[in-house]
Amino acid sequence: MKFNVSSSLEYYVQDEGTLIMNIHALRTPAQTILEESLEVDPYYKSEELLAAHGESRLVRFLIDRSTSLKVNYQALVDNCYKEIQVEALTEVPIVQLPPDVLTYLNPSRYCQSDKLYRFADKKFGAIEPAFDKVLAITDWIYENVEYLSGSTNSQTSAYDTVTELAGVCRDFAHLGIALCRALSIPARYFTGYSYLLKPADFHACFEAYLGGEWIVFDATKLAPLNGLIKIASGRDAADAAIANLFGNFTCNVVNVNCELAEGEFKPVFYNKDYPFGLSYI
Amino acid sequence: MKFNVSSSLEYYVQDEGTLIMNIHALRTPAQTILEESLEVDPYYKSEELLAAHGESRLVRFLIDRSTSLKVNYQALVDNCYKEIQVEALTEVPIVQLPPDVLTYLNPSRYCQSDKLYRFADKKFGAIEPAFDKVLAITDWIYENVEYLSGSTNSQTSAYDTVTELAGVCRDFAHLGIALCRALSIPARYFTGYSYLLKPADFHACFEAYLGGEWIVFDATKLAPLNGLIKIASGRDAADAAIANLFGNFTCNVVNVNCELAEGEFKPVFYNKDYPFGLSYI
Amino acid sequence: MKFNVSSSLEYYVQDEGTLIMNIHALRTPAQTILEESLEVDPYYKSEELLAAHGESRLVRFLIDRSTSLKVNYQALVDNCYKEIQVEALTEVPIVQLPPDVLTYLNPSRYCQSDKLYRFADKKFGAIEPAFDKVLAITDWIYENVEYLSGSTNSQTSAYDTVTELAGVCRDFAHLGIALCRALSIPARYFTGYSYLLKPADFHACFEAYLGGEWIVFDATKLAPLNGLIKIASGRDAADAAIANLFGNFTCNVVNVNCELAEGEFKPVFYNKDYPFGLSYI
Amino acid sequence: MKFNVSSSLEYYVQDEGTLIMNIHALRTPAQTILEESLEVDPYYKSEELLAAHGESRLVRFLIDRSTSLKVNYQALVDNCYKEIQVEALTEVPIVQLPPDVLTYLNPSRYCQSDKLYRFADKKFGAIEPAFDKVLAITDWIYENVEYLSGSTNSQTSAYDTVTELAGVCRDFAHLGIALCRALSIPARYFTGYSYLLKPADFHACFEAYLGGEWIVFDATKLAPLNGLIKIASGRDAADAAIANLFGNFTCNVVNVNCELAEGEFKPVFYNKDYPFGLSYI
Repeated sequence: MKFNVSSSLEYYVQDEGTLIMNIHALRTPAQTILEESLEVDPYYKSEELLAAHGESRLVRFLIDRSTSLKVNYQALVDNCYKEIQVEALTEVPIVQLPPDVLTYLNPSRYCQSDKLYRFADKKFGAIEPAFDKVLAITDWIYENVEYLSGSTNSQTSAYDTVTELAGVCRDFAHLGIALCRALSIPARYFTGYSYLLKPADFHACFEAYLGGEWIVFDATKLAPLNGLIKIASGRDAADAAIANLFGNFTCNVVNVNCELAEGEFKPVFYNKDYPFGLSYI
Repeated sequence: MKFNVSSSLEYYVQDEGTLIMNIHALRTPAQTILEESLEVDPYYKSEELLAAHGESRLVRFLIDRSTSLKVNYQALVDNCYKEIQVEALTEVPIVQLPPDVLTYLNPSRYCQSDKLYRFADKKFGAIEPAFDKVLAITDWIYENVEYLSGSTNSQTSAYDTVTELAGVCRDFAHLGIALCRALSIPARYFTGYSYLLKPADFHACFEAYLGGEWIVFDATKLAPLNGLIKIASGRDAADAAIANLFGNFTCNVVNVNCELAEGEFKPVFYNKDYPFGLSYI
Repeated sequence: MKFNVSSSLEYYVQDEGTLIMNIHALRTPAQTILEESLEVDPYYKSEELLAAHGESRLVRFLIDRSTSLKVNYQALVDNCYKEIQVEALTEVPIVQLPPDVLTYLNPSRYCQSDKLYRFADKKFGAIEPAFDKVLAITDWIYENVEYLSGSTNSQTSAYDTVTELAGVCRDFAHLGIALCRALSIPARYFTGYSYLLKPADFHACFEAYLGGEWIVFDATKLAPLNGLIKIASGRDAADAAIANLFGNFTCNVVNVNCELAEGEFKPVFYNKDYPFGLSYI
Repeated sequence: MKFNVSSSLEYYVQDEGTLIMNIHALRTPAQTILEESLEVDPYYKSEELLAAHGESRLVRFLIDRSTSLKVNYQALVDNCYKEIQVEALTEVPIVQLPPDVLTYLNPSRYCQSDKLYRFADKKFGAIEPAFDKVLAITDWIYENVEYLSGSTNSQTSAYDTVTELAGVCRDFAHLGIALCRALSIPARYFTGYSYLLKPADFHACFEAYLGGEWIVFDATKLAPLNGLIKIASGRDAADAAIANLFGNFTCNVVNVNCELAEGEFKPVFYNKDYPFGLSYI
């Protein structure tokens, strides 16, 4: 399927500052960028950086003082996610995990898995196989955490959400990741454009490493799993923020859009009748 | 200079489990391994992994149940750290940082730089140049945080230490890292063997990215900066633990040693008469 | 001096609920209520309660569902605070503290003095006498914590503020209290009307127990210390909230006013030329 | 029933310091002290204080420097707890709560009920009547929190325990209190001697205010509810510590004992066949 995605952001930059944006659709075997444009008004030379493990395409600008900046990104993306039989999505023994996956077992800023061992084990430890275990985690989050705009802030972490039980997509993702890691399942943050998400916005969910694949899960259940266009993955939102602002910035407008450009869309949510996991890598 | 380093650890493994150790001296341009041995008793096949960015050499074992395991590591290491003129160790503008360094600006599990902006700015924001700024951070930690064995645990983070003002080398390092990142200076955790550290143990300190180099700093001031043998670097202790244990392990003995094998040792601590920063990369 | 104080609050009560308000000026030897009225529209029978230690005058209502409630309080208060020579405001040894004062040495919800011992001791431990010690605490808070509306919420505590260094009057008070208690000086929260506070609002500051008196301190320095009309004291904001709402309430309007009714007002702030501490008890 | 209770504690006091002990059995209508002795070696004059609301009997000493202090307390106590029919233990509407009970609805240092509203409501909000609701809270804690000596410290709070799911009697009590308050049921900390507790030690549990009575609950289920000798109640452990030490103290020995002196003891635990709640007031 092909999707038109776009985002437009406006900033006011008081003093000279550096802006690092993370709004480009990622290039992966499962995701092809057919067309793409980035407009910056006023014009600033930008530099595209491929982040450490190829998990995000950053764009970096040095912006002058007293600048009202508009950034418009548009892309036509061919989304060819993989469908993998659930039976194949087994837990990979620690002793067989690839080195670059091991890091996603460690606790991170917003996913303090080291404080959630007992909780995770008690709730989900006995559920097998691993795919069902991760599904049970997303179901528990969905049923227990209230999706409530404005209930959390940029410091809110999984350790808060597991008790306070309210948050937005970012918080749902952090909690899913933390619980997976607490159970020795590698997990990481996923940001992207999302078809049929209402209201339209950037979306966040997570990937768990099962059967040697990074399988996408979304505890918010707000949008179909097969309508995602991946922007980035990372340990948590600290790695995959939409924008990192170094200086005195004000963000005034964010508009995000994702539309079907071609193909037929049959929404996918994991359930008994759909025996696959989806991967965007 | 050449150093003989060794560590011996003993575990009791109740159920089958996976052990990932991080005790090998790292191979870097500034550090050559001349001889090295790893003994595991009873014998288990091990697998050496080079972690994601080449920042640690992990060794992984699958251990049977009911096993008393002894691990002995020994190495002869030629330490050829670089001395770089302080004048060259300027702050690298965000816009010029290499992509793989950007990640060390982000907050992490034990280094919540996002909660320390005001504190860091107020205390150290006005100090220039950057090398002096980082030195001021280490001096402040040294003067204000009490080195107190047993005062902290594996969940203690920089956010605790900045207020509770007690900790061990790991906590001193986390606070140094968090304060640097809060000031937009990339910083990362450094573990290693340490000559003249008393009592002998693994040591932790940190590296800040100045003038395009990873410069080592140690807020504990417990050992000379030029007697370090690097084991690993990472975002914080979550990335660079001496051992990650997946299963039911008990650690019974840890012995660590570091001795001068050849060469003359003149201890280095940063001060006015020593116009260099040290790098182990 | 006499002050006219008033506050008007509006609530929408969705389901039946209980409202406990704490907006009445307190009756103390140092504060006489000359006139007072409470209007509730629509009319609800209210009950006045004197809280546990006589430290607040609560008014309690049971409100019907779907009610738009207006509460107006007005009073004419004769403020006869005591001025006590600084020389007399010595630290009371623990062994001589009255039993009902001991409780104000304990940590509380928003004043975790147990986590601030080292910090408090290092910064203020050596300052003598005790009045100067508390002044030094208020000065440090004033100089280091930024007064920033909206930077904190109802869960913010002294432990956050001491590091994050931003907050409102409530946060300034909590930090002052926590630091006093960490140094074994009893301290408690003080809410009141405040003359010349801009913008007009309820104010919060704190009292420290020195020389056998509860002496008022205000780390915000936003209003004169002698223009306060005490509403309540308590361990922290948990005890002295303006309103406790049990049910589904929305607060729409808060207007607060405090004007001089009679007498000449010479603003008092503690400084070298004013050798007194003020008490409202 | 009559119980012999005793406790002996030993301290080394390096510098002159003040010791406030809270080990005396409380005098209440439901608990009569028949005999009592306190030995202090070397002899120090002590002063007995009745704490603010008569909820603890404190004993205060000023101890010289370099003193090895032994404190022995012994008492013969007639325990005449009340048994109240469960039907009578209804929830008291907020609008009818006595003023001195209201304070036990507020969050406190170790019982952050303000952060547990959603959690408490979701788990227990629908359970009626109130006695069953509190029972459900104790059952949930008993089933989910592991009793594990050494797993927590003096800073551990209900907010930690609800997620980390390990602790000792103090932590079980704090969590029970916090969950009750989050559901608008007044609750407070209870410390005492406990018959049949193994190993013998001071015990902590909690009281909830139901039907106009303070009813005792114990989420640890480690000892019968009718073998308690009350020492103190308070908001949480901050109010009811066994000892508060102001100075440089080391506690070396704690021995606690509780034996049946007269009468027949039939252990009581709440269950379907025992339709009463117990009160020690």
